[in-house]
Amino acid sequence: MAVEEALLKEAWLALEKSIIYYLGRPVGTVAAYDPEMDALNYDQCFIRDFVSSALVFLIKGETEIVRNFLEKTLRLQAKERQWDFFQPGFGLMPASFKVEGHGVTQDLRADFGERAIGRVTPVDSSLWWLLLLRAYVKVTGDISLAHQPSFQKGIRLILDLCLVSRFDMYPTLLVPDGACMIDRRMGIAGHPLEIQALFYGALRAAQELLLENEENQYFVQAVNNRIAPLQRHIRDEYWLDAERLNVIYRYQVEEYGEESFNKFNIYSDSIPFDWLVNWIPEKGGYLAGNLGPSQLDCRFFALGNLMAIATSLASDHQAHAIMELIIQRQGDLISQMPMKICFPALENSEWRLLTGCDPKNRPWSYHNGGSWPVLLWMLAAAAIKTGRKEIAYEAIAIAAKRLSQDGWPEYYDGQSGRLIGKEARKFQTWTIAGFLLAVELMNRPEALSMLSFEDVIVPPNGNGSSLSD
Amino acid sequence: MAVEEALLKEAWLALEKSIIYYLGRPVGTVAAYDPEMDALNYDQCFIRDFVSSALVFLIKGETEIVRNFLEKTLRLQAKERQWDFFQPGFGLMPASFKVEGHGVTQDLRADFGERAIGRVTPVDSSLWWLLLLRAYVKVTGDISLAHQPSFQKGIRLILDLCLVSRFDMYPTLLVPDGACMIDRRMGIAGHPLEIQALFYGALRAAQELLLENEENQYFVQAVNNRIAPLQRHIRDEYWLDAERLNVIYRYQVEEYGEESFNKFNIYSDSIPFDWLVNWIPEKGGYLAGNLGPSQLDCRFFALGNLMAIATSLASDHQAHAIMELIIQRQGDLISQMPMKICFPALENSEWRLLTGCDPKNRPWSYHNGGSWPVLLWMLAAAAIKTGRKEIAYEAIAIAAKRLSQDGWPEYYDGQSGRLIGKEARKFQTWTIAGFLLAVELMNRPEALSMLSFEDVIVPPNGNGSSLSD
Repeated sequence: MAVEEALLKEAWLALEKSIIYYLGRPVGTVAAYDPEMDALNYDQCFIRDFVSSALVFLIKGETEIVRNFLEKTLRLQAKERQWDFFQPGFGLMPASFKVEGHGVTQDLRADFGERAIGRVTPVDSSLWWLLLLRAYVKVTGDISLAHQPSFQKGIRLILDLCLVSRFDMYPTLLVPDGACMIDRRMGIAGHPLEIQALFYGALRAAQELLLENEENQYFVQAVNNRIAPLQRHIRDEYWLDAERLNVIYRYQVEEYGEESFNKFNIYSDSIPFDWLVNWIPEKGGYLAGNLGPSQLDCRFFALGNLMAIATSLASDHQAHAIMELIIQRQGDLISQMPMKICFPALENSEWRLLTGCDPKNRPWSYHNGGSWPVLLWMLAAAAIKTGRKEIAYEAIAIAAKRLSQDGWPEYYDGQSGRLIGKEARKFQTWTIAGFLLAVELMNRPEALSMLSFEDVIVPPNGNGSSLSD
Repeated sequence: MAVEEALLKEAWLALEKSIIYYLGRPVGTVAAYDPEMDALNYDQCFIRDFVSSALVFLIKGETEIVRNFLEKTLRLQAKERQWDFFQPGFGLMPASFKVEGHGVTQDLRADFGERAIGRVTPVDSSLWWLLLLRAYVKVTGDISLAHQPSFQKGIRLILDLCLVSRFDMYPTLLVPDGACMIDRRMGIAGHPLEIQALFYGALRAAQELLLENEENQYFVQAVNNRIAPLQRHIRDEYWLDAERLNVIYRYQVEEYGEESFNKFNIYSDSIPFDWLVNWIPEKGGYLAGNLGPSQLDCRFFALGNLMAIATSLASDHQAHAIMELIIQRQGDLISQMPMKICFPALENSEWRLLTGCDPKNRPWSYHNGGSWPVLLWMLAAAAIKTGRKEIAYEAIAIAAKRLSQDGWPEYYDGQSGRLIGKEARKFQTWTIAGFLLAVELMNRPEALSMLSFEDVIVPPNGNGSSLSD
């Protein structure tokens, strides 16, 4: 991989500088280390942000920090059944934590969203945590960590939070707006793809990590029961390509009964055919952003689609079609900085209504069509998995030209990603880690196995329990 | 109450005609009995629809049908922990049920939304069921029914579904779009007022109905813990009046930390001050439709506001201000048919985006600013509670002029409610029952106690558990 050694060294040094120590041991990385800006909460270790750092550390053989992180965050997990609502929900992992105090009086303080802007809930933290635990086990071979009773309990708690007592009958997870990487209002409340892809990966991870014993029995069964229907639901209902677009275009509406074809009663008029028809290439496709009653969000979300490839939530055919779309629409999705978090941006009345006039998320900025270098490693992972490495090489080369020079910003703005993000921190840790991880993955594609899953065969009309036969 | 006897008799006969029998005993009422239109699912008994009929039956001393309904629906409640998602969630009550078969082979078939258009979930069914059980006990004095082990278990299951394992840290309930009377997409996903008002009433009902025994211990505590914070949250955060509007107008944004004032990071630009400033009268106010990250839905929703008065979710001062607003804005909210389900209607891009181009919910029709006679009884209840009976008398007189003549339609359309709803069924049971119930309540205001609750005093900064001291 033709990236200059000096650049990689600079990135590695910056990553090392971001490490947080607790009682003398490394436990995480700060979100950003920007000497020019007020820290706000950027001096904390975010669970979702640290995953990128952790995977780099794992691939480099620096496994201790990851183990420490997993152990400490496990202790921060909400452990009590939440009978009053003052406590974070049972099983929830915090959004972030911070080391407070000095010397031997140091303590870890968790934030579950109660201090976050807009008070959003980090639903994805628990899911990423499970994926990281599994990656740690894959790389180190140290299954004994995951088999410790405290870890088995932590896994059960996460599953309990995700798997039971819901208000609807879909295999997907219902979450409020801002519950994942997109942690400000962006019209993704409901069943956003990003959460579903991470949820699927977390279930696959749990399946590998749960011991088959009496205590786990119901959880093992519940995980097995859920994987197939979730996979089928996303593959069938979220998929968009030219053929499917034509089906939706001709949908009958107001069908009543279990046999209805247009189950969610989607009105064809609500689909943005004007740009979509031209945007979807003949051989490409992608998973839609969200699905609900009379709602199909046709925006392309990068994280959800890329992680759906890595986890095999998308079928093999779909994975190839998604890569084909990314390659054919490189000008929109990669352009001058990989990679757009979503496409297209919400503008005008859509922006007003769905972001609540959020100026940080104005069109082609931040979450609303901004470009995020951290997504580079997920692009690399998806490219390796589908054998389309050339697009990852190209994207890395584009990023390499600018990241160091621009001071490793959190995100980029503008339709082509040409501008450093308006409010972007510099020396953002997951930008640095994301770049390093992409390069490392391309150099050692076999390492992908720590974060990918093989496809499982699902009987077309059976139920999920056949998986456990 | 000056309503012609002949009209009341006609309504009563129509209500009797709608009764559904199961194995020879009355168990509910059909949604509509329109000889001119295809039944679709209007031949079923909807839980939320039947509540209006049930309250009329109770007030008339016809308690057997209500008891049968409570017993049969209890048997239909989802009773198993839902480890695979194929079953309706633990504790959920169905949206509707239907008697199938003939003679001794009759059976009840429940629908939890799996056959409904758009596959929406009836979250409100369980909440209405608890409110009705409590009304039955109030009217009959027959607490033994609620104390039966099967009923105590049913109550616990509903509470379990509502009270535990959630993704956020608010006392409100997170639900998908279309989870209540507004059962099609209308941009009310999240924490809609209607659900919160019913939830509050259901908790107050459970508090009265749960036996204090070991099995119930945690549930009693959980209910007590939740009531005060839920009440405070709604009263503080959902309230809109002239003074509060000015506070929101001057909101600071992007505050980080637990002490932030604009907790939900609402951008003033997203608030429709243009009409709102003139619409809110100097002494009036109301509870907003929804609240979330950067989201404050300023539409007026009738059911949520009226039930907030009946259940004392709204403070005494707020209850009076809501009635003042309804009276001063009678032209918008009552006009030619009581009462608008919400105001104003979503139009143009708002309609496209938030309803998904649903033609049934086009502006000033159906849920989107249509007028629903069933709301008349809730208006009567709120009017009695606040001592503003004149508005209820006026509304009943307006309805009396047209309902029979128009064939008791489900809903009315148009900004003034002048048109019979485009797709409205005629002889809609809850239109008939709602009218009868409103008249009966005005004639016997003491009967209001079956569906209202006294205010509870909540310490301003204490936590809810003090309620149980």
